[in-house]
Amino acid sequence: MIPRYSRPEMVAIWSPETKFRIWFEIEAHATTALADLGVVPREAADKVWEKGSTATFDVARIDAIEREVKHDVIAFLTHLSEIVGPEARFVHQGMTSSDVLDTCFNVQLVKASDILLKDIDTLLAALERRAFEYKMTPTIGRSHGIHAEPVTFGLKLAQAYAEFKRNRDRLVAAREEVATCAISGAVGTFANIDPRIEAYVAEKMGLSVEPVSTQVIPRDRHAMFFATLGVIASSIERLATEIRHLQRSEVYEAEEFFSAGQKGSSAMPHKRNPVLTENLTGLARMVRSYALPAMENVALWHERDISHSSVERMIGPDATVTLDFALARLAGVIDKLVVYPENMQKNLDRLGGLVHSQRVMLALTQKGVSREDAYRLVQRNAMPVWRGEGDFLTLLKNDPEVIQRIPESELEACFDLTYHLKHVDTIFNRVFGRS
Amino acid sequence: MIPRYSRPEMVAIWSPETKFRIWFEIEAHATTALADLGVVPREAADKVWEKGSTATFDVARIDAIEREVKHDVIAFLTHLSEIVGPEARFVHQGMTSSDVLDTCFNVQLVKASDILLKDIDTLLAALERRAFEYKMTPTIGRSHGIHAEPVTFGLKLAQAYAEFKRNRDRLVAAREEVATCAISGAVGTFANIDPRIEAYVAEKMGLSVEPVSTQVIPRDRHAMFFATLGVIASSIERLATEIRHLQRSEVYEAEEFFSAGQKGSSAMPHKRNPVLTENLTGLARMVRSYALPAMENVALWHERDISHSSVERMIGPDATVTLDFALARLAGVIDKLVVYPENMQKNLDRLGGLVHSQRVMLALTQKGVSREDAYRLVQRNAMPVWRGEGDFLTLLKNDPEVIQRIPESELEACFDLTYHLKHVDTIFNRVFGRS
Amino acid sequence: MIPRYSRPEMVAIWSPETKFRIWFEIEAHATTALADLGVVPREAADKVWEKGSTATFDVARIDAIEREVKHDVIAFLTHLSEIVGPEARFVHQGMTSSDVLDTCFNVQLVKASDILLKDIDTLLAALERRAFEYKMTPTIGRSHGIHAEPVTFGLKLAQAYAEFKRNRDRLVAAREEVATCAISGAVGTFANIDPRIEAYVAEKMGLSVEPVSTQVIPRDRHAMFFATLGVIASSIERLATEIRHLQRSEVYEAEEFFSAGQKGSSAMPHKRNPVLTENLTGLARMVRSYALPAMENVALWHERDISHSSVERMIGPDATVTLDFALARLAGVIDKLVVYPENMQKNLDRLGGLVHSQRVMLALTQKGVSREDAYRLVQRNAMPVWRGEGDFLTLLKNDPEVIQRIPESELEACFDLTYHLKHVDTIFNRVFGRS
Amino acid sequence: MIPRYSRPEMVAIWSPETKFRIWFEIEAHATTALADLGVVPREAADKVWEKGSTATFDVARIDAIEREVKHDVIAFLTHLSEIVGPEARFVHQGMTSSDVLDTCFNVQLVKASDILLKDIDTLLAALERRAFEYKMTPTIGRSHGIHAEPVTFGLKLAQAYAEFKRNRDRLVAAREEVATCAISGAVGTFANIDPRIEAYVAEKMGLSVEPVSTQVIPRDRHAMFFATLGVIASSIERLATEIRHLQRSEVYEAEEFFSAGQKGSSAMPHKRNPVLTENLTGLARMVRSYALPAMENVALWHERDISHSSVERMIGPDATVTLDFALARLAGVIDKLVVYPENMQKNLDRLGGLVHSQRVMLALTQKGVSREDAYRLVQRNAMPVWRGEGDFLTLLKNDPEVIQRIPESELEACFDLTYHLKHVDTIFNRVFGRS
Repeated sequence: MIPRYSRPEMVAIWSPETKFRIWFEIEAHATTALADLGVVPREAADKVWEKGSTATFDVARIDAIEREVKHDVIAFLTHLSEIVGPEARFVHQGMTSSDVLDTCFNVQLVKASDILLKDIDTLLAALERRAFEYKMTPTIGRSHGIHAEPVTFGLKLAQAYAEFKRNRDRLVAAREEVATCAISGAVGTFANIDPRIEAYVAEKMGLSVEPVSTQVIPRDRHAMFFATLGVIASSIERLATEIRHLQRSEVYEAEEFFSAGQKGSSAMPHKRNPVLTENLTGLARMVRSYALPAMENVALWHERDISHSSVERMIGPDATVTLDFALARLAGVIDKLVVYPENMQKNLDRLGGLVHSQRVMLALTQKGVSREDAYRLVQRNAMPVWRGEGDFLTLLKNDPEVIQRIPESELEACFDLTYHLKHVDTIFNRVFGRS
Repeated sequence: MIPRYSRPEMVAIWSPETKFRIWFEIEAHATTALADLGVVPREAADKVWEKGSTATFDVARIDAIEREVKHDVIAFLTHLSEIVGPEARFVHQGMTSSDVLDTCFNVQLVKASDILLKDIDTLLAALERRAFEYKMTPTIGRSHGIHAEPVTFGLKLAQAYAEFKRNRDRLVAAREEVATCAISGAVGTFANIDPRIEAYVAEKMGLSVEPVSTQVIPRDRHAMFFATLGVIASSIERLATEIRHLQRSEVYEAEEFFSAGQKGSSAMPHKRNPVLTENLTGLARMVRSYALPAMENVALWHERDISHSSVERMIGPDATVTLDFALARLAGVIDKLVVYPENMQKNLDRLGGLVHSQRVMLALTQKGVSREDAYRLVQRNAMPVWRGEGDFLTLLKNDPEVIQRIPESELEACFDLTYHLKHVDTIFNRVFGRS
Repeated sequence: MIPRYSRPEMVAIWSPETKFRIWFEIEAHATTALADLGVVPREAADKVWEKGSTATFDVARIDAIEREVKHDVIAFLTHLSEIVGPEARFVHQGMTSSDVLDTCFNVQLVKASDILLKDIDTLLAALERRAFEYKMTPTIGRSHGIHAEPVTFGLKLAQAYAEFKRNRDRLVAAREEVATCAISGAVGTFANIDPRIEAYVAEKMGLSVEPVSTQVIPRDRHAMFFATLGVIASSIERLATEIRHLQRSEVYEAEEFFSAGQKGSSAMPHKRNPVLTENLTGLARMVRSYALPAMENVALWHERDISHSSVERMIGPDATVTLDFALARLAGVIDKLVVYPENMQKNLDRLGGLVHSQRVMLALTQKGVSREDAYRLVQRNAMPVWRGEGDFLTLLKNDPEVIQRIPESELEACFDLTYHLKHVDTIFNRVFGRS
Repeated sequence: MIPRYSRPEMVAIWSPETKFRIWFEIEAHATTALADLGVVPREAADKVWEKGSTATFDVARIDAIEREVKHDVIAFLTHLSEIVGPEARFVHQGMTSSDVLDTCFNVQLVKASDILLKDIDTLLAALERRAFEYKMTPTIGRSHGIHAEPVTFGLKLAQAYAEFKRNRDRLVAAREEVATCAISGAVGTFANIDPRIEAYVAEKMGLSVEPVSTQVIPRDRHAMFFATLGVIASSIERLATEIRHLQRSEVYEAEEFFSAGQKGSSAMPHKRNPVLTENLTGLARMVRSYALPAMENVALWHERDISHSSVERMIGPDATVTLDFALARLAGVIDKLVVYPENMQKNLDRLGGLVHSQRVMLALTQKGVSREDAYRLVQRNAMPVWRGEGDFLTLLKNDPEVIQRIPESELEACFDLTYHLKHVDTIFNRVFGRS
């Protein structure tokens, strides 16, 4: 997470201020619940809320205490007692640090998920709008980077839409994974704290109760969360790679928006580079890489060790901030993408009609030619076209073995572009529920 | 995937025989659907089924053809026409190789998922049985590898159960991700094949229709699938690590079953090593590692490139076979785990009662002592115990600042083990729905 | 490691036959050394060599024994005593299984390295030959996929050559890392075996002595080895990606060799796809992924645990066999690469002279124009060309602010291609030591 | 990279101030070299040095310009011209941004390497000192976490020393990998800049010349660099894991230094947790994870794309700062490690002499007993000891089959601890060159 690739709303989730505020809420709700059960005085709980709600937690002061006691939650509680007064001794009763830390981390991940979901929604909206804009804009479909058969540019975006719709569903599931609360004490047995405290805090913090914790919330949940972010990042890379390809000099079917003052290169002033999508490719690598330490974090020793903590202090912000930035950047790229339908048509026409070869082959088999023969007939006419020695339709018309099976008019019909687009509506209906 | 870490049922899914059988089913169902639409003769479809259903596909023959044509699906279709006769030319009409390959791969992953789900069920059953067996067997809970407070051995297994229950849910979701079928032609436009063929084949193969494919089924689905396997593997590592720790010479609270003839070490005949769980730790690393190339596979170029193929030919079998083996091995380890409750008690008693320190601290705060003072009082009596200089309860009784606040009988009550186990039922009810 | 991506010589290194042969050599050399020290009878050592040298180790028999004793080295030694007779009891004296296993694994990795080094040499030879063949063949250099300035095709290959030369050096270093021998007993103290045995075996097996082992050879060595293979794989991906780009329909400057009988696509017979380099891209992902579990293997518990073993049984063969195959395939691709210099020229000419913009900008600054003004002047003439509205040189000549600073002849000289190639020799000399 | 896990000297390398200072030096040296060749006026070069050497580059101002022009090097050059005046137009002549960026990145990595080398030296010194301190302190060697045979605590540290010595060598090699300079222009052809400029700048910046660059320095170098850091991190994890194990309650042979004011747990005041080494375990996961995106960075498109840049902006600081912190923390842990030789002895004695079983087995075979029989004899006496039913030596003495082969005094000699330590000097000599 570096400022260059960060957006303030997501960064704020990971600020010390936000963290201490969440810690306070967890502790204060737990104190209220303890008061409800008669374990601590009602007045103490009230005092905690009264003083703490409006207090500004002094990050520098807490850090100073931590440097002395070498324990972050104790440092916070010490500072809280400075704010609240002697009633603060009823705070954190029967709890363990991880009750606060883990529940807070999950609150942060849930908040981060909510931003990421909004990001995906913005991206989906952009993809949908542009998909319908270019729904019937023909462009060459490519497999292996080689011209295959026509598709439309809208279809490309529809595919991206469907992919990010799946990513949205995955993120909703990942958010559920980490939306749990544990207030279960030193080894998760509720020895010193009633499970009703946990239920109360969970409800107030918008979380569900962790069925069995062991001082810590089990890290398979977080592994799944960060793995999911890695998959989303991979989809970002896919769409970014598509745009990078389309902007290549030789292809030039689309282009990132290039603002007036922007300079492409210090050396080559004519250059307009797909730097945003290249950047997204790199960011995707980063988000993906965080899935690994998250998985390695699962196998904590016995009831817990703290090896996961340093990892999470880094990848918690790094993964969510970077993914937020990447999704927002990608939405902007799609929203303002400059599309060149005329270049798409030009590229479509490049291969002298070869893109219709499969149709010709099918027509031949429908006339009773064996698959092997049809393949041979098509290939012997395709190869000269491939070498730039003629036009596919003309060659086919001049091939006696072909023309004696398919009349000229039928052969010409094989070269009709709209033939390829007849099911675009079907696909749009599947993806968008409308066409 | 190596024989040593393989089980035959899962290996069979990835055999050439199984693959060609699935290819045949996809092609034959598609031909039937084409006949339903009147595109190909009914008799052709019937002949394909008639000849193909009972045929044994000759793997060596198909390989020989492939070496010549350098294309696997064409090789298969050529061999199929050797079996079926001239009617075979109606097979694969309007389809592209990936229609067969990708749908087949997904069928294999679905079949693999079904085995893995059975594996998890077996493991869950073992965990549940042993968890209830040791539900109230006290053992020390450890954080940071250091004695903390008592738990029960059943609770450890209940946590593992809950974790693998989540993994089961994740696997069900992952199975859904890849349970799709695409019969959409060269670039996914259904140019040469009616979408109804796809719907028919999908239904027959137990899959849903891929809303938008681009010759290939999008690989974010598979990235999610293999990432999920990586998370499950990480949970295996966690449980394996727990057992390795419990079997350590100094801990020795549980032990892998050691059969009569087995030799632990060529050099040290007394040794009984946790080799199964160590092995599982290594296997987990492998399964986890496959998530990465699966994620890198997502960003295919344009409508498809074939870079994913070599990856999947390797990780398809490698990840599922290894995980199947690991889950089955882990289930066996749990099922036959030798548990030593008396050693658990011995370890519990090692620290001279220090595990009750938190309870003493709480008792002090409930008597009106500030958190800081309570901490200080407890720590000054704990430290000598830690150094082996006395028993915690005795020291506390002799500390005037303590004993003047907590009467002796209350102090002794703080050392009651059952206090820690009072919510075991609560947790079991959460995890198993019964206690 | 699957047959499709395997070559026999490398596969043979990992066969049980090879493994048992190496085990035999280690054990037999150790027995000789023990005899030299008078620890075991000379006749015993002679008998071991006499019987073992010509014996065929019965893999099935060893496996059967292992199934019973659940220990591979004991199984082997039992089988060896079946071959050698009672003298076999002097074999393995004072040694531990890992002495054999680890030293054998390192011998296998050294043998694998030697094959990989030959592979790289073959690749380097192909790169050098083709680099000189196209040393002065102009082609457009591209940054961000956008035309930049001219290079030569030979330079591209020279860069690949330099990169694989570095990889060769890295592999030599990686081979050194794992070329060690440990015969140090159960915990590496030489308690029951004299260090001179280790020195003798090391020398005989072509290894150096591991300075301090702890039953096992430390796994940081192997982590470094497999990480190095991952870097080499990444270079393979780079060169493969280059070729995939060059073969794109719109670029079409080079092409994988396409044999006569080969079929590109079941549906589109005209297609010639860069399937070999796409395949290499996937294989590179696999080899890279193995670096991770190798790194996770380093942190074994205390003097050793066996978690590394399952990982190495898989990645040992998987990584070396796959990389061997990939390097050989890449060498073949380069060797037979079909290059289209005329298409390179065509692409060079596409952008109406814009590739010379930097030179014009420099010429302007040399005439005293500020960098900012030069940039502005060039860009305002470049943009119309970019939009297909004219030729760069013509526009510049018509721009009064330009032409008043740079005379027409000097402007034209800026468009001379050979200007860009004047240091090709310099670079070739650096890379190849000749030009 | 977060402040909690950062040290200022390494952080400073990655500050904008340092970066701009290095950029300046590269540009200024290049200008001098250009003046030497007569390409730009000597006065211009002098002016650049004169003004720039003492200037403070205004980061905020450069950022503001970058926001407008969206190009970092142009922003810097614009700011430089504000400082230097019109002579600044001679700066950067014939160069491309990457000449500055890549050379600067390498300078930063070299500086970072130098700090990391110092860190390793500090760690090595601590390891050596402590290794000699405990050179002959007996402790049980453990394989699989199970007691094996005696070693010394000094040997454990000697192994760590040897491992980090290897890591030092690897880091020196990795530093060499990235210690290159490229000043080769837009596509690496030196079209607009003489190779002598590159040679001059390289020498001044303490780098060697990159033999063939393509606007960028090839990223296989950086992949190797970050992979090497990942291996070093894995070694950190190994040593950290060792200490975590030694500090376990049941083992308790060593302990991290625990300062007076430090609090181990908010709930359990007696706890002294190995939090530093647990933290190191997590940090190792992070450093290791950065190797992957570094490897994915290798396959840039054609002469370059910029996808590597965002990755490097993150992992450049993240990997080096985290590793620096981790190495320094580990050195501190080793330096102040509290070692408990008496507990080591206690653990050695736990298994009733079983650790000598291999020696007994060897003694039996030397008396002519077959390996299988010796194994059986030892195992039948070992098993009761293992179950806590007696002392190994006593049982052996009472086993007629044993005692008739080995006289009592020889049997007792098998239990002599010094037997195991006789080659400690040998190993120390190998590792440290002295003993």
